[in-house]
Amino acid sequence: MKKIAVIVAGGSGSRMNSSTPKQFLLLNGKPLLFYTIQTFLGAFNDLEIILVLPEENIAAGQEIIDAFFDYSRIKITAGGRTRFHSVQNGLNLIEDEAIVFVHDGVRCLLSTNLINRCYTAALEFGSAIPVINSTDSLRKITEEDSEAIERTSIKLVQTPQTFHSKILLPAFKIDYKDKFTDEATVVEAYGLKVHLIEGEEANIKITKPIDLLIAEKIIVSTI
Amino acid sequence: MKKIAVIVAGGSGSRMNSSTPKQFLLLNGKPLLFYTIQTFLGAFNDLEIILVLPEENIAAGQEIIDAFFDYSRIKITAGGRTRFHSVQNGLNLIEDEAIVFVHDGVRCLLSTNLINRCYTAALEFGSAIPVINSTDSLRKITEEDSEAIERTSIKLVQTPQTFHSKILLPAFKIDYKDKFTDEATVVEAYGLKVHLIEGEEANIKITKPIDLLIAEKIIVSTI
Repeated sequence: MKKIAVIVAGGSGSRMNSSTPKQFLLLNGKPLLFYTIQTFLGAFNDLEIILVLPEENIAAGQEIIDAFFDYSRIKITAGGRTRFHSVQNGLNLIEDEAIVFVHDGVRCLLSTNLINRCYTAALEFGSAIPVINSTDSLRKITEEDSEAIERTSIKLVQTPQTFHSKILLPAFKIDYKDKFTDEATVVEAYGLKVHLIEGEEANIKITKPIDLLIAEKIIVSTI
Repeated sequence: MKKIAVIVAGGSGSRMNSSTPKQFLLLNGKPLLFYTIQTFLGAFNDLEIILVLPEENIAAGQEIIDAFFDYSRIKITAGGRTRFHSVQNGLNLIEDEAIVFVHDGVRCLLSTNLINRCYTAALEFGSAIPVINSTDSLRKITEEDSEAIERTSIKLVQTPQTFHSKILLPAFKIDYKDKFTDEATVVEAYGLKVHLIEGEEANIKITKPIDLLIAEKIIVSTI
């Protein structure tokens, strides 16, 4: 089966107090996005990448590819107004049947093992959504107040959210709704259930300055 | 008003793949617990600490205090079977009216600012529970399946959970129940509401090897 990773790197740098979009921030001298791409390309020899970038960052993305990677395995396309629209643009480039990994570009710490497990589960169940438990206690905000809830009843959702193209492509023909915060919600709106698998504690999203410190530490300790 | 921090450091090292209890793991040459104690002592000149440690770690805790701190401001007592019982043992040493901060010893990255805000809110509202939003999407596990839930409807709960002693001491006379995962749930079982305040993204709990890497990076970058 073909393997295609749609890597969405649409974020601006606003939460980072930085004018550099976070996917281009340097970790140990290389942009965040380098590590994400490298891990996917290394997971399967025949995996291809569709990189979805804001229009104004396409040149910067192309530079990373030219500098470090086999460009025959990577395409770039422009993102849209929301994550949904960006993913939709990426999916428009898929022609053949494939297992499709939709991944946050700024989750640069995922492992090859997670990619493999997502692939196997999506082959078997049609989808694979990696989730983990919170290590903190949880409270639910109610209308006037808040109440404690059982920690294991809620899962934190990661990416790559992985699907058979036969499911994901038709699901993304749907009209956009604000509640589409990830691909699982789109597939559910299309009327299908999703299959959860165990995510990885290290697979964090680099959205805050503290995350960048974390990622840098991990990258340095593993190379 | 008196200020007392009950710092609970009861964890074994099981999740860390380490035989050293995590509160004694070294960050930049000093135990985790050193940083937690230092931040609390620095927040208010008249703040006192009650350190609750497993019986077998009391000598190690005493060594940290002797090496680094003004021991007149710190007492040590033995922990109990659960977090609830450990906190109860700590509270038993409180005689005067006070604002009481109950804090996870392994959350060594909290700021003085958070301690100050907890103090002010607990003075005004009787309690202050720091919470933050998840940066990940969330799913609720249902009986047969799972469903997406609104990310901001659930809060991740941190410490110091801070209370007026007039609330916390009587609340902890209650019989133990398994659902007491933190102090807020005990105070609610006693029949009172709790007041939430904004926590800190950096105020993570060091429970996994990856967290230690994070904390080390932050400690090194801020000294």
